[in-house]
Amino acid sequence: MKIFHKKSQFPGSEEDILSCISKYFPNKHASVILGRGDDCALFHVEHSTAVSSDLFLENIHFRRSYFTPFEIGYKALAVNLSDLAACGARPMSFTLCLGLPEDIDMPWLDQFFLGMSQLADKYAISLMGGDLSRSSSIHISITVLGEISGVSCFLPRGGSMPGDILFIIGQLGLAHVGFELLESQGRSAIEKWPFACRAHLQPQPQCTAGLVLSRAAFHARPPALMDISDGLIRDLPRLLGKSGELSTTHNHNNSLGADLCLTESQLHPEVLAWSHEQHQNAIYTALLGGEDYALLGTCAPDLLPTLEAAIPEFQRIGMITENGTISCNDLEIQESEGFDHFS
Amino acid sequence: MKIFHKKSQFPGSEEDILSCISKYFPNKHASVILGRGDDCALFHVEHSTAVSSDLFLENIHFRRSYFTPFEIGYKALAVNLSDLAACGARPMSFTLCLGLPEDIDMPWLDQFFLGMSQLADKYAISLMGGDLSRSSSIHISITVLGEISGVSCFLPRGGSMPGDILFIIGQLGLAHVGFELLESQGRSAIEKWPFACRAHLQPQPQCTAGLVLSRAAFHARPPALMDISDGLIRDLPRLLGKSGELSTTHNHNNSLGADLCLTESQLHPEVLAWSHEQHQNAIYTALLGGEDYALLGTCAPDLLPTLEAAIPEFQRIGMITENGTISCNDLEIQESEGFDHFS
Repeated sequence: MKIFHKKSQFPGSEEDILSCISKYFPNKHASVILGRGDDCALFHVEHSTAVSSDLFLENIHFRRSYFTPFEIGYKALAVNLSDLAACGARPMSFTLCLGLPEDIDMPWLDQFFLGMSQLADKYAISLMGGDLSRSSSIHISITVLGEISGVSCFLPRGGSMPGDILFIIGQLGLAHVGFELLESQGRSAIEKWPFACRAHLQPQPQCTAGLVLSRAAFHARPPALMDISDGLIRDLPRLLGKSGELSTTHNHNNSLGADLCLTESQLHPEVLAWSHEQHQNAIYTALLGGEDYALLGTCAPDLLPTLEAAIPEFQRIGMITENGTISCNDLEIQESEGFDHFS
Repeated sequence: MKIFHKKSQFPGSEEDILSCISKYFPNKHASVILGRGDDCALFHVEHSTAVSSDLFLENIHFRRSYFTPFEIGYKALAVNLSDLAACGARPMSFTLCLGLPEDIDMPWLDQFFLGMSQLADKYAISLMGGDLSRSSSIHISITVLGEISGVSCFLPRGGSMPGDILFIIGQLGLAHVGFELLESQGRSAIEKWPFACRAHLQPQPQCTAGLVLSRAAFHARPPALMDISDGLIRDLPRLLGKSGELSTTHNHNNSLGADLCLTESQLHPEVLAWSHEQHQNAIYTALLGGEDYALLGTCAPDLLPTLEAAIPEFQRIGMITENGTISCNDLEIQESEGFDHFS
């Protein structure tokens, strides 16, 4: 880790890039003992540390044709913070690996770091280090570190029980609608569909809600929690331990099911309007979703009043059952239809 | 962080990839509370944690034409562990972000994970999580975490004093020779130049030596330490705080200098033979180097007997001065010649 000196051709000089990073990211944080500039950064956390790493690649996760550099910087960090939120961890710091093609210039980088720092500042997290390289397209990979403090608890995916309340925090399907519109119409789609486009371009990680859940759970059975990145229909079986890596190791539980109860009144007006235009059931749009970065969880019924009062965006969307199937508004969802995204 | 399920086309199925990872990487470690399979991994370290992130990109850091998949997996982790070694941290765990083009198949991935796990097993470190995506070329980025325990200390780059001994642990220039040979002759170069090619293809991180230095320093003034990735001529000024990000923040000290004393007897026979063939001064080859992943450090003279006795590869190569210049065998090295690799 040597942020940032490599024997490659970069926009501007090494010093320009360092100055740009220093301008936007103070090299310190309460938990960080030694920040950028050495082979490693050094930090100390009293209790335990949550860690997550995600890729954010040009033409796979974003396009320069309709993302501004500000939004690329913002979203690259946002999708990582969403993983911390999904575990109830308090964001602390991150590392950034950045591959840049030759046509990236300093004004682009300035906007990129500005966008990233806006979100970093919101949660007071520090950029501890990273790596820089030339690459054929823009490559971003971020590792975030978060703290589980003494009054909160780590919220894993597992642990749901029959009778538990199924909830989401955030919008279902809105980012997917934005993605479809931006792909087909480009950035001009923002004018008519501002919320949907914004949900895709600049998603808001639910860190505060994650922390509230984490603290609420300290003296109770903890909620099961995850973030919805691949759409509710794909992610719910993972929460229940029916697919995903958890299912191959522990918490394998094919007997759990879920009865979803979703009404159009729970969906964003732009999801309804777009689905109407597409002659598509809006509930189906919401279920399929993708990149929602909403939180999906379950909790014991006795936690419900507390959570509903403490988290404005909290929405109850169903109940956990012991019949092994997943249904929505009394229609069973076949795993073979929606769940195997490798086919 | 969701190792590994994404709605992309991959070699084999999601299950194949998960099985392959599970085959080579047990999902546990003494320090890890929760490993792969959730939004975040969770770990606990008693004292403090060192972290480093590095990119390892196809056609930038390696080529498939002369790297086997085993070596790509091995080296991707090795260059990261070298950063932990350079801080005296004990390797603990890592996350892996992997972008794969469509022509990668399961046998390739099997060898890749085998190579990576061979090094992971050597240091008993766990793969805690990561991310997987399609990409246009092979993209690897790894974040390593290491522990600074109660009987060791973090070894930063700064803190050298005039009169300190300058040392290296590892070979100077050997990996650079291997790189040049592999680039010009391809993999057939291994036959005549096995050590040089091996040094480039499968570098050995100096983790054990880093730990010895870290423990030796617990009751003494700690050595200054870094790993040589860009070549001695570029990295020495960084150790002395004359360039690099440290120089822009703290430890800026233009008054420190170094008198290097390097003889051909300290260099590997293949460095000498290749330099001779190229009609190039072997000392110059060693200074220029690149990707040595040797450790470069300074220590107080009274630590020298201990370190020489405890670390077989320890080589004294000079002394720190207060005259502000860097010389080798009494010839001054001009910063303008070698140090600005952005020109």
